[in-house]
Amino acid sequence: MEFSKDLLLEIHDNIKPFINKTPVLEFDFINELCNCNVYFKCENFQKTGSFKIRAASNALRCLPKESKEKGVITHSSGNFAQGLACASSLQDINAYIVMPENAPEFKKHSVLKYDINLIECKSTIEAREKTTSKLLIENDLHFIHPSNDLNVILGNSTIGTELLEEITDLDFILSPIGGGGLISGIAIASNIFSNKCKVVGVEPKLVDDAYRSLKSGVIQYNTNTNTIADGLRTNLGDINFPIIKKLIKDIICVSEDEIIDALKIFIERLDIIIEPSSAVALAGLINKKEYYKNKKVGVVISGGNVDLEALNI
Amino acid sequence: MEFSKDLLLEIHDNIKPFINKTPVLEFDFINELCNCNVYFKCENFQKTGSFKIRAASNALRCLPKESKEKGVITHSSGNFAQGLACASSLQDINAYIVMPENAPEFKKHSVLKYDINLIECKSTIEAREKTTSKLLIENDLHFIHPSNDLNVILGNSTIGTELLEEITDLDFILSPIGGGGLISGIAIASNIFSNKCKVVGVEPKLVDDAYRSLKSGVIQYNTNTNTIADGLRTNLGDINFPIIKKLIKDIICVSEDEIIDALKIFIERLDIIIEPSSAVALAGLINKKEYYKNKKVGVVISGGNVDLEALNI
Repeated sequence: MEFSKDLLLEIHDNIKPFINKTPVLEFDFINELCNCNVYFKCENFQKTGSFKIRAASNALRCLPKESKEKGVITHSSGNFAQGLACASSLQDINAYIVMPENAPEFKKHSVLKYDINLIECKSTIEAREKTTSKLLIENDLHFIHPSNDLNVILGNSTIGTELLEEITDLDFILSPIGGGGLISGIAIASNIFSNKCKVVGVEPKLVDDAYRSLKSGVIQYNTNTNTIADGLRTNLGDINFPIIKKLIKDIICVSEDEIIDALKIFIERLDIIIEPSSAVALAGLINKKEYYKNKKVGVVISGGNVDLEALNI
Repeated sequence: MEFSKDLLLEIHDNIKPFINKTPVLEFDFINELCNCNVYFKCENFQKTGSFKIRAASNALRCLPKESKEKGVITHSSGNFAQGLACASSLQDINAYIVMPENAPEFKKHSVLKYDINLIECKSTIEAREKTTSKLLIENDLHFIHPSNDLNVILGNSTIGTELLEEITDLDFILSPIGGGGLISGIAIASNIFSNKCKVVGVEPKLVDDAYRSLKSGVIQYNTNTNTIADGLRTNLGDINFPIIKKLIKDIICVSEDEIIDALKIFIERLDIIIEPSSAVALAGLINKKEYYKNKKVGVVISGGNVDLEALNI
């Protein structure tokens, strides 16, 4: 998990043609509310509406030629489906996306606009895995995991690379933590590009598996996944957990009400529509604002893909 | 109306401490919809939620010392009230803002958070002007007009300066046209910083005074101001109209339905909440998309201050 500055810069250079350099936004309202300087890294304005295209672009780029020719597969009902669909179109690699048949129409639509193979299956995890495995074997495909894959993680490191290039003297970066691929990538970059910036995870109390994992030193699982932050219901993996254990010291857990309050601030005060998982990091900052007083804090907005009406907040 | 590159850069440098450098965003959805490369200059993410702080900051900065000491006054129920309130606080200049008593509470609130004098009056234009004039004389204040003032216009030029610095080879910039202060500033910058970029105005058909003014060569007025784009109900002025006449060749007029459709694209597809006046430029681009095919087009989002519930679209 020790990577060189040159490697991280090379990864960034290599995926630049496939991604947006997302803006870093400041809001007086937030700075006044939190008594610190807050810099939002806006992956909601990334291609496909989330950071996942960074992950997918790097994972595809790093495949051996043979795998690129045969194609890749993943199962996802969310942002990674869109990210991989777009990235594989851009790199001209054959991709199979397995989605549960009850995925919202707008999500299916946003994947289908790329030249990929969408395969629908029943909505259970078993059906997803079985369908994926069958297709993988039949077509000799390479499976790409949305978060527990080193090249996925290194693709995500480019968020930290860009943010610390723009705001060089950050004290902290707050990132949502779900499957662990996002925060471990950012922590790798922060470890290389800053000698003081600490990366802090924020997760919903209802799915506090990362908090418990870090505390116990062993990956923990959620028994209940009933949080509004649907992107954070997943568990850590064996590739990203060692990185998290080494580089992340703190995880803040926030209540559903705190997540909803932060989401409302985004929509009503900052005029940005984001998905609930993205509001979690701001909820953590507000929860611990005394601690961050007068500091320079980066906050990662991971994505914006949401059906606002369905949310009903 | 001939200004040097040095002057425009100096103005930009001078107001930089008081403003945000707003992001320029691209969206695949829009590029595909319009068959061209569209670059949104996002003044909705400007301090106070609109470009007006650029105008106010430069107008205040350029006042003689005596006027700075005595203070300034304006009447506005909208974005200029917020822009001037914030800019005068930042430059430590005493400001009087006259607002109609029926202005929405959220607008009063956003002005009152600065250390300024808010004076309420009846909601007629006469009451506004009478109240302003009385205070101006009593306190020996300087009146700052929101759009028909050279330093206001030159403050707005910094939008064009930033946009053309970032996207150097734009073919067009589409800007809403209301009072004329925004578009004339952008046109001045475009004329200096690009040898090919044409600035085009877009306004609602219901308040097509600028279109008719440009056609007839004389400032025309609106008899009906019943457009959803409430920021564009105002008329051109004698300072900005000559600039517009010289530098603007085309104005696109759009229907209320086209404005609402564009506004829905922002909210539902781009996940940004903006005010209706800001959706007008995109409505113009969509209306004339055949003309802009394969071109590089800047689109100015002038502001984001809106009460979404009151809008009821």
